[in-house]
This record gives sequence, C-alpha cells and structure tokens, in this order.
Amino acid sequence: MTSAFDHPWLSGLFADEEISALWSADAQLAHMIAFEAAWSRHGHLARLWSEADGTRAASAIEAVSLAPAELREGTAQDGVCVPALVRLLKDLTGESAIHKGATSQDVIDTATVLSLVQSLDVIDQRLVDLGDALSDLEARFGNRPLMGRTRMQAAVPITVVDRVQAWRLPLETHRDRLAQLRPRVALVQIGGAAGNRTALGDGTDTFCTAVAQELGLGTSPRAWHAMRDGLAEAASTLSLITGTLGKMGQDICLMAQQGIDEITLAGGGGSSAMPHKQNPVQAELLVTLARFNAVQLSGMHHALIHEQERSGAAWALEWMLLPQMVQATGRALDGAIDLVGQTVDIGGSET
Amino acid sequence: MTSAFDHPWLSGLFADEEISALWSADAQLAHMIAFEAAWSRHGHLARLWSEADGTRAASAIEAVSLAPAELREGTAQDGVCVPALVRLLKDLTGESAIHKGATSQDVIDTATVLSLVQSLDVIDQRLVDLGDALSDLEARFGNRPLMGRTRMQAAVPITVVDRVQAWRLPLETHRDRLAQLRPRVALVQIGGAAGNRTALGDGTDTFCTAVAQELGLGTSPRAWHAMRDGLAEAASTLSLITGTLGKMGQDICLMAQQGIDEITLAGGGGSSAMPHKQNPVQAELLVTLARFNAVQLSGMHHALIHEQERSGAAWALEWMLLPQMVQATGRALDGAIDLVGQTVDIGGSET
Amino acid sequence: MTSAFDHPWLSGLFADEEISALWSADAQLAHMIAFEAAWSRHGHLARLWSEADGTRAASAIEAVSLAPAELREGTAQDGVCVPALVRLLKDLTGESAIHKGATSQDVIDTATVLSLVQSLDVIDQRLVDLGDALSDLEARFGNRPLMGRTRMQAAVPITVVDRVQAWRLPLETHRDRLAQLRPRVALVQIGGAAGNRTALGDGTDTFCTAVAQELGLGTSPRAWHAMRDGLAEAASTLSLITGTLGKMGQDICLMAQQGIDEITLAGGGGSSAMPHKQNPVQAELLVTLARFNAVQLSGMHHALIHEQERSGAAWALEWMLLPQMVQATGRALDGAIDLVGQTVDIGGSET
Amino acid sequence: MTSAFDHPWLSGLFADEEISALWSADAQLAHMIAFEAAWSRHGHLARLWSEADGTRAASAIEAVSLAPAELREGTAQDGVCVPALVRLLKDLTGESAIHKGATSQDVIDTATVLSLVQSLDVIDQRLVDLGDALSDLEARFGNRPLMGRTRMQAAVPITVVDRVQAWRLPLETHRDRLAQLRPRVALVQIGGAAGNRTALGDGTDTFCTAVAQELGLGTSPRAWHAMRDGLAEAASTLSLITGTLGKMGQDICLMAQQGIDEITLAGGGGSSAMPHKQNPVQAELLVTLARFNAVQLSGMHHALIHEQERSGAAWALEWMLLPQMVQATGRALDGAIDLVGQTVDIGGSET
Repeated sequence: MTSAFDHPWLSGLFADEEISALWSADAQLAHMIAFEAAWSRHGHLARLWSEADGTRAASAIEAVSLAPAELREGTAQDGVCVPALVRLLKDLTGESAIHKGATSQDVIDTATVLSLVQSLDVIDQRLVDLGDALSDLEARFGNRPLMGRTRMQAAVPITVVDRVQAWRLPLETHRDRLAQLRPRVALVQIGGAAGNRTALGDGTDTFCTAVAQELGLGTSPRAWHAMRDGLAEAASTLSLITGTLGKMGQDICLMAQQGIDEITLAGGGGSSAMPHKQNPVQAELLVTLARFNAVQLSGMHHALIHEQERSGAAWALEWMLLPQMVQATGRALDGAIDLVGQTVDIGGSET
Repeated sequence: MTSAFDHPWLSGLFADEEISALWSADAQLAHMIAFEAAWSRHGHLARLWSEADGTRAASAIEAVSLAPAELREGTAQDGVCVPALVRLLKDLTGESAIHKGATSQDVIDTATVLSLVQSLDVIDQRLVDLGDALSDLEARFGNRPLMGRTRMQAAVPITVVDRVQAWRLPLETHRDRLAQLRPRVALVQIGGAAGNRTALGDGTDTFCTAVAQELGLGTSPRAWHAMRDGLAEAASTLSLITGTLGKMGQDICLMAQQGIDEITLAGGGGSSAMPHKQNPVQAELLVTLARFNAVQLSGMHHALIHEQERSGAAWALEWMLLPQMVQATGRALDGAIDLVGQTVDIGGSET
Repeated sequence: MTSAFDHPWLSGLFADEEISALWSADAQLAHMIAFEAAWSRHGHLARLWSEADGTRAASAIEAVSLAPAELREGTAQDGVCVPALVRLLKDLTGESAIHKGATSQDVIDTATVLSLVQSLDVIDQRLVDLGDALSDLEARFGNRPLMGRTRMQAAVPITVVDRVQAWRLPLETHRDRLAQLRPRVALVQIGGAAGNRTALGDGTDTFCTAVAQELGLGTSPRAWHAMRDGLAEAASTLSLITGTLGKMGQDICLMAQQGIDEITLAGGGGSSAMPHKQNPVQAELLVTLARFNAVQLSGMHHALIHEQERSGAAWALEWMLLPQMVQATGRALDGAIDLVGQTVDIGGSET
Repeated sequence: MTSAFDHPWLSGLFADEEISALWSADAQLAHMIAFEAAWSRHGHLARLWSEADGTRAASAIEAVSLAPAELREGTAQDGVCVPALVRLLKDLTGESAIHKGATSQDVIDTATVLSLVQSLDVIDQRLVDLGDALSDLEARFGNRPLMGRTRMQAAVPITVVDRVQAWRLPLETHRDRLAQLRPRVALVQIGGAAGNRTALGDGTDTFCTAVAQELGLGTSPRAWHAMRDGLAEAASTLSLITGTLGKMGQDICLMAQQGIDEITLAGGGGSSAMPHKQNPVQAELLVTLARFNAVQLSGMHHALIHEQERSGAAWALEWMLLPQMVQATGRALDGAIDLVGQTVDIGGSET
C-alpha cells in the first residue's frame, strides 16, 4: 500500500470515499466496458459491421462480468490493459463485432474522462457546499474583530469577514473555471490505431456523436490522443482549488496558535504524548494536499510533451498522477467543509 | 547574469525582446508610476484629498524621472521597492496627495498585471500567427505520407496533416483559455494596509473603477491580495501553451533524425566538432522551454498558499517565477514560428 | 485504487512486489510494534520503569496481533495512527510500561526508516545486478558499431560500449551515494513530546543506543524530528537512480525505432489495434518512472520546511511521496534488468 | 530583466554579489578560454599537434580579450556559444592548434563546473560561518525557555537551544555532503564529438590529467557528457541546504508574530502603509528561496533523462536552472547569517 489514499489506516485521513469509488478499478472497468458496448452498438454507422451484429455484441458485452485482476497479466505484458480486455470480451461473448477500428487509447482515455467528469460534478457540488458553509460562518462571526496580518506581522485591525472572504470568493471563480473547462475535457476519445480514424468508414462523424452521446460526453472533430491540454487544464484547475483550500488551512493553523487564539475548533486530533493537545489536523491536511497537488501538477504538464501519435511514457505518467490529484481535491473539499463545521468560535469579542 | 533570458550570449537563444521589454525594470517602474498617478488623480473620489491636490500630484508624479536602480537600496531594506518609491515621489514632487490609503502590494500587483496583460496580448497574436503558419504548412504538405508512430514505434501510415493538426488545433483552444482568463486576472489591486480598503472613504467603488479604467484594467468587489488564483491560472495557461509547443518540438526532433528523415529544416545550428551537422536547435528549445514552464508552474501553485493578508514568502516566489514563465512562453512561440518557417520539406513523397 | 502501484491491473506494470511488501501496512505495523517493544524493553535504562515491567511489556507487545485497519478510525481522528496504536497495545496487554516518554513521531519516523533502509538494501543489490547485466551486454555486443547521436542527429560512429557505459557507470556511483547516505538516514528517531528527550532520565544515551541496536539502526545525539534532510537526501538519491534508468530507457526507445533499428527486444508489448507491433514497454516505463520521481522529489524538498518541533503538514506530505518514490525506484531497477534480458541484439554488424 | 537575481532593484533583496560574480558572463567566458588554453597547451600529449604549436596557441588564447556579447549571434545560430568562440579564437590568434578533438560540451560543461566548484567553496565557508553564528546564539540565549510547538500548537516547554540546534546541526551534515560530492562533480569534461575521445591519440589519459590539473579539477575514465548525475546531485545538495534555512526562516517568522513574541529582530523591513511595522524580511526570504530551489530541483532531475550522446533539450534546461539554484543558495546563506546578526533577543526570560 504505497498510496496514502488507499492505505488501511492512512485512508482514514486521506481517503475520499465518494471520489475513490469513481476511480476504483471496478468503475474504470465498467467505463471501459461501456465504451466497448457503445462502440459495438453504433459501429454500423461507421460501416464496421451490421447493425444486428453490433447490437447483439453490445448486449453481450454489457452482460460480461470481469474481475479487474483478470487484466493484470495482460497489462504487465502489453503495458496497457486493453488488448487483454478485448481478448476476454471476444472469448466470453463469442462475438466479433467488437473493438475493430478502435485502439487502446480510445478505451482508456474515454474511461478516464468518465471518471474525471463525474468527479468534477462532485467537486462542483462541494464548492457550493463549502461556499454556503463559509457564508454561514461570515453571517455568524463576520463582524468580529481580527488582527490583520501581513508578512506574518500584526498590521491593522480587520474583521472576520475580511479574512473569510479570501477563502470563499475564489470558490465561485473555480466553479466558473470548471464550467468553462468542461467542454474541453468531457470528450470521447476516438482515434483508432494512429489517431486519424482511418479505419472508420463513411459516417464517422455520426458514429462518433452516437458513441459520445451514449456515454454522456461531447465529441471533437479529431481525436485528442496526442493533445493532452484538456487533461492538464483539468489538473491545473484541481490544483487551483486545493491552493485556495491550502491558504484557508494555513490561515486556520495560524489562528489556532496559543498566543494568537483567533479560532476555536471542536474535535481536533489528539497526541500520544500530550493528551491535552487539540491539533488542527484537518487544517494541516489542507496545506498538505495543496502542496501535494502543486507538486503533481508539474508532472501533468510534463506529460503534455506527448511525442508523435502516442507516447507510452507520457501517457503512463498521467495514469500515475491524475487520479491522485482528483482524490486529493475531493478530500480537501470535504476536509474544508468539516473544518468549517468544527469552528466553534472565530475572531475576538465584538466591541 | 544568472538568467538565460538576460545573459549576454544565451539571450541570443532564450530572449524574447518584445516580451522582455514588457517586463523590463523601466516598464515595471512606469507601471508603478502610472498606478500612483491614477491613485492621486482619482483619490478625491474616495475622500483621500481634494481634487485639486490630487490632480496636481498626479501631474507631478507623471513628470518624475527615476532610474530603476534608485529603488535597490530600499528593496534591500524593506523587502519591497514601494516604500522607497513613495519617499522618492514625495521628495521629488513636494506633493503630499500621494499613495495614502494604498499599500505596497497594490502598486506591485497592479504593475505586474499590466505587464502580464500586455504579454498575453502579444502571446495571443503569436498564437494566431503560429496557427496561420501551421495551416500554411498543412496546405503545402498536408497530403504527404508519414508513418504514424505510437510508443515510438511505426504503427500505420498517416499523412502530414494528421500530425500537424495535433500541433495546431490546441492553439485555438489556448486562445479561448486566454479570453476566459482575462477578466479573472486583468484586475487592478486595491486593498490598502490589510486588503479591506478601510482607509478609503465613501465613494470607494467609484474610485476603484476610475483607477482601473485609467489603467485599462477591470476591478473587483474586493482586493485579490490574498487570492492568487488569477495569477496561478495565468501561469497554468502559459504552461499549457509551451506544452503544446514542446510536443511539436519533440516531434520535429524525432522527424529530423537520420534514418527517419521526415522533415528538412533550413538553418539548423552548427557544431564546433562536426561542421557538417545541422542541429534542430529551435525544436530542442521548444522542449526545453516546455519543461522549464512545467517546472516553474509548480512553484506558482505553491504560492497560492498565501497566508493571512499578505505572505511575503509566497509573494516573492511569484516574483521569481512568473516573469520567467512569460518570457519562456513568448520565446517558445517565436521559436515555433521560426521553426515552421525553416521547414523546407516534411513527410514523404506523395504516391 | 488511486495509485498505479496498488491497482488491480496497473500493478502488473507498476508494482514491485518485493519493495511493496517492505512498505505494506503489515510491515509498517510490525515496525511500529518492534519500536514499542524495544522502547518497553530498554526503558529502564532511561528510568521510565523497572526492567521487569519493561521486559514483560515488551514480550506482551510482541505477542499482540493487530489488523492494520484497526488504526483507521484513530488516524482519522488524530491525524496520526499512534495514539490509537498505543491505546490498543495497552488494552490488549494490560501493561503500562509502554510508550511513556515517546511520541507519535518517534514511532512513525522509525518505522519509516526501517522500511526505507530495507528498501535501500534491495535497491543496492539490484544496482549490482543491473551493472552485471550491462557488463555482460557490453561483453557480448560492445564492439558493435553504433551511430553516435548528439542533439538527436547523427554525429560520428561510436560503438555499443560507448553508449552502454553511460547507463552502467553511474550505477556504481549511486552505490557510493547509498553507502555514504546510510549513516545519515538509518537512524532511530527518539525525541519525545517536543523532540528534546526531556521525559527520559539519566541514561538517555544508553537507552537510545539500546533501542537503536535492537532495531538495527544508528542513533544520533539529538532527535532528527525537525531535521528532515536525511529523508530528502534519500529521496534525491532515489531520483538520481531513476534518472539514470530513464536515460537508458529513452535511449532504448530511440534505438528501437523503425528506421533506426539499433536494438532488438524480445517480448515487447502488444497493441489492441496492431497485433504486429512490438512496443518497448519496459523502456518507456523507465522514462515514466524517472519523470515521476523527478516530480515527487520537489515535494520531498518542500517538506524540509518543517516548522517548529513538528509540522503536521510537511510530515504528512512525506507520507504521501516517499513510499511511492521507493516503489518507483525498485520497479525501475527491475524493469531495467528485464530490459537488458530482453535485448536480443544491439548495434550494427561488426565490420 | 526577467530574473530577480539580476534585476536593478530586486537584486537588492535577491542578489549574492560574490556568487553572482562566479557565474557572470565574464567569468564563464574566462573559464571557457582557460579550457581552450589548457587544451592547446597539452594537446601534444594526445598527438593533436606539436608541443610548440600548442604552447604558442595557448599563450595567444590567454591574451585574447573578448566581450561576452560577441558570442550572442553565434549562440542564436548554433544553440551553443562554442562554435562562435572557436572561430573568434582562431581569427584573433591566427593559430590553428585550437579545440581540435574537443566539442562544445567539453568547453561549456567544464566552464560550468569551474563556476560550480568555486561556488561550493563559498557555500562551504558560509556553512561554517552560519554554524558559528548559531553556536554563538546558543551560547547567549540557549537556556532561555521557549514553548515547544508541534502541529503549530503549544506542546511542552523547551529551551532556545532545542530549537536552534535543528537549524544548526544539519549545516555540518551538509558540509559532509559537499565533501563527498566534490570528487563526483569537480571533473573536467573531455569527450569530443560523441563523447568517446576518439579524436585523441595515444596519451589520452595523460592529456586528460594535464588539462584537469591545470584547471584544478579531477578527471574520469570517461566523459560524463551523458551522465548528469553529478550535477543533479549538486543541485540536490543545494536544495537540502536551502531547505534547512527555509525551516529556520519559517520558525523565525512564526516566533516574530505579535502574540508569540519569541524573537526580536533589529532592522526588519518597513511598510509603505504602516511605518510602525517591522517585517521579518530576511526570514521570509529564506522560505522563498527554499521553495524556489525545491521547485527548480525537479527540473535538474528531469534533465537526467539526457538522450544519446548529447541532449540539446535537457542540457539547455540545466543552463536555465543550475545557476539560479546556486545563486539562491548563496543568498539564503548570507540572509541567514544576517538574520542571526539581527537577533537582539530570543526566547523568554530565564526563570
């Protein structure tokens, strides 16, 4: 268990069960199977096979039950799970109107996008929830005095609302970013062997649209197999979100210091050496997750250098980074919502 | 000369003179003076001083001539150049309707945004130019055969247009991103000592709008002093752009290999040991600049963790990173345009 | 399953079972229990309790059987698993000569170091094995001609040994680095509540030495709780290793290109669209893992900014990054060894 | 002026004049000329030319006076300054026993190493100086009480020495690292066109040793042209140093907070809005520089993936990053020394 998100006990701190489920191997496999079924079902539009053969294959594919681990050996061999998946689907269904004209990247990228888009929906809703929670905090404590601090030094008095707005206002802007980003990333990947859809016949556009619609995605005039800017932009937006939350967490850590005493949190963490301590665990976690995403983001941008028609090296780097970034973002939002809920008191006495 | 962008000879490879001028100390100083003049001129709207005093001070400020180096000692002392600037402006003009109600961050952030917005205009135009150059390349060579390569291995034949479109299509998307980003970052910074504009009187909104309009910027209901997501988003977009160009550069390096011979470039670089060699210097540079920005971007996202009302530490990190990222992006676009111009031949013979 | 290392099918490509076992939750828990047992056993040396009480507690602790998941709820609450662990150990053993004078960080850091040091031993042995495999490759093919390539262009002829030595020679240097690093990182952590060992009485040094010896570690005159340079140096060395292997992988990818044809690999990966293809999957993986570690390393260095006597934020960042870096390094070494074994032919015909 | 290190006023905060001089274009040019002179002088040992011709050429080269900007156009053309340099040296001296058998990378890498090694000497001395200053601080204030703080919360009382030792002790370890690193990086680069020294005749080893000795460097059995681990290790060590200083800076920022008041600094920075404020500018700068190096380090490790016999892309990335990292490290050490000197008081009253 090398990942904090999946670890038996660290997951208590790091895991976001809702997001985790969206990226589980089961969910990814279901997405890949949904792609293959849609491909079979609509393949006749691109002259891949007859409508009857495709319909029958699609139904058969949807009835297949596979365990994720059945793809392990094939992944070790091929560097990608799809050849094994396609073999299994063909063997288990006895159908042949399967996968023709598609390639591994079509399946995996589309499955990734499905997990991503569902995650962005969750994230968007949590941005609303956190904004509401912070608005409520402002309503309750906003007029309380607080010492404004610049360069970590007492500057001039402000009020609680002045600081909390710096946590809340960017959330709405992040929602705008997510809405603008969506049509750039919620796209089916259809390219075929070298990305130019040559194995598809007349009716390619109709076919692509039908597959995309079945999956709830948009389509694009060309495969984005070697144009990874949509994914890197999504990663950037995730890191902008955790950055805002990291700033909030850092502020709360500073406010909770003895001697500063500008916030009272219920339910902080305990210490094995000092039972009296209340540690602002959730606030620190926001800082950790913000730095984690700021680190990973760099790798997602290196992966933009995706040579030729498919870079095995850059592509696999995305696999290692993006799911963790989504998970970190979901967890940070949940942690921030919890943290606001733990806030018993903030700011000084109104005078 | 620790920076490749400013270095006497490395600048021959790395410098972008147009962008460099927008971020020169002279330009930054001019932006700061423009801010201070606008502040004085409109200050009466926020009850800072009389209209007559402010108008006179604004004119006097605009007439001041300062050398950038005059701010060096003050920066060493204060960690920021503005206290020295304000002292000099007051001394040199004899006026007092200056800077009151503003703070260092207002001046520097606004000056940074002015350089940034002008740079984004240049970058946007170059995206157009590069797109046009690539469209022209497609028109000339698009039907030529090319071996599609996935995982660095020959896959199936494609045509030149298939590969070039992966370089060109994201450019238009990047322009959309820049347009959407602009209202989030082209914002005057007005906060005062602790960011809440308390030193400004009735008429604050009118005042802020007047200052913003004079500077060609938008305004926001609150200072963004501790909300750095606009700058980090701008940096992300710059890195998306260089990422696309890095992919193009990497492809061209690979196409130029002897044994592959899919592109012929005029004017490659020479070698001190092998006069016969033609090195694809501009193509390699695109890879370098893409990785450079992917690295720096991480730091811009760490700087989102901007504690309290002003983080000296996180703010100074932006100063170190953002100007270099803009410069790298401008240079990469110019290099890519040059590279297309150097392309004598691409792809195989049409059959 | 957000991590490629632990994923049901991606683990086929990414997992290193030997390293993975060293970082498993079971192994980490065993290390923590070993620390607590050693602490109890030798505690009388620091006047924590009587020798009899400590000996009895140590034996009882060693007999405890715990499932990792039993620490999950406590970790969620406290941000760290140790308070829950200590409660369980006390409850299950009925002993009280447990953990007194220690703190969570002592337990977790020591457990981490134990996994790390065992991993470094594995890594060191694989460096030997890879060096041997490469030496053998040199012996078999070293005199074959190869085109030297600089800036991705044909330069002048070299031989296979010239290129392979650039893969092999740094391995020995990495072993030197590991040997020099070891005494700086293979250290028990003993600090107590605030890191200064104040809860320990006379005999602290003897006690520390006894605990360290039992665990096979060294000790240091002070706790390194807030001095994380040993861990960050270890991470740096891991990334140096994967960097060398990434260079080797990139070279092999380039050599395997059709048109270049300088290497023949057996057992490359298959494609779902192109059954004829042989993809250099292991070579690409080396590039991916090198970039992965280069990305993560940045975060390990940010974690050096470990404020005061314990930074929850910086510490948790290490938990997220270091185990993945070790796993990536182990996997890359195994992949490189496999890759050499797959090398059927390299270089041109001897003339 | 895109770099804070070279900027007319930001340099007041960021520049380290001693380190800056070691990396100036003048110094780099002097190093390159020194390399070419040594090459000419000893070339007869490798049968490149007669001893008389080489000696005369060496003297002539040493008498040449060049302005750095004379290499700019050639760098723009060739991507590297050496072809232009060699042309100029030949033209200006009329000699021909110049550069034969060498290549651009030999000249530039050796010149870089000369700047680096001189910088490491400066850094090593400053580590001593800072250690002494901190020891003095411990002697003066070490017994003062301080609240130990873990997870940013008051834990248990400690003394000043407990905290200051976490700043001081790693400095000695960093010196050990520098000493161990030195023989791995203080190496002349001699490879020739493709790195295997083939243009050199019998006596190559004697020749290499003579060139290395003249330059005060070591030699290695093979060129390290494509093995960049020495440079990346140096960069890692620089970042370990700034990480330690960043921890110290962060601690001091936290100690300087009003309400905490555990340190009194003389000579903090002023504010344009709040003349009464004393900002801990140098302490914040240490945090900034630590994060800057942690960011850049990632790029130096990506540059390990240095394909084939010379990667123009990866090599140029080093040029952009390493000089800035050295400068940041030098500045941080100077800033830390200043900061200790500014410390008027630290800790509470002894009871």
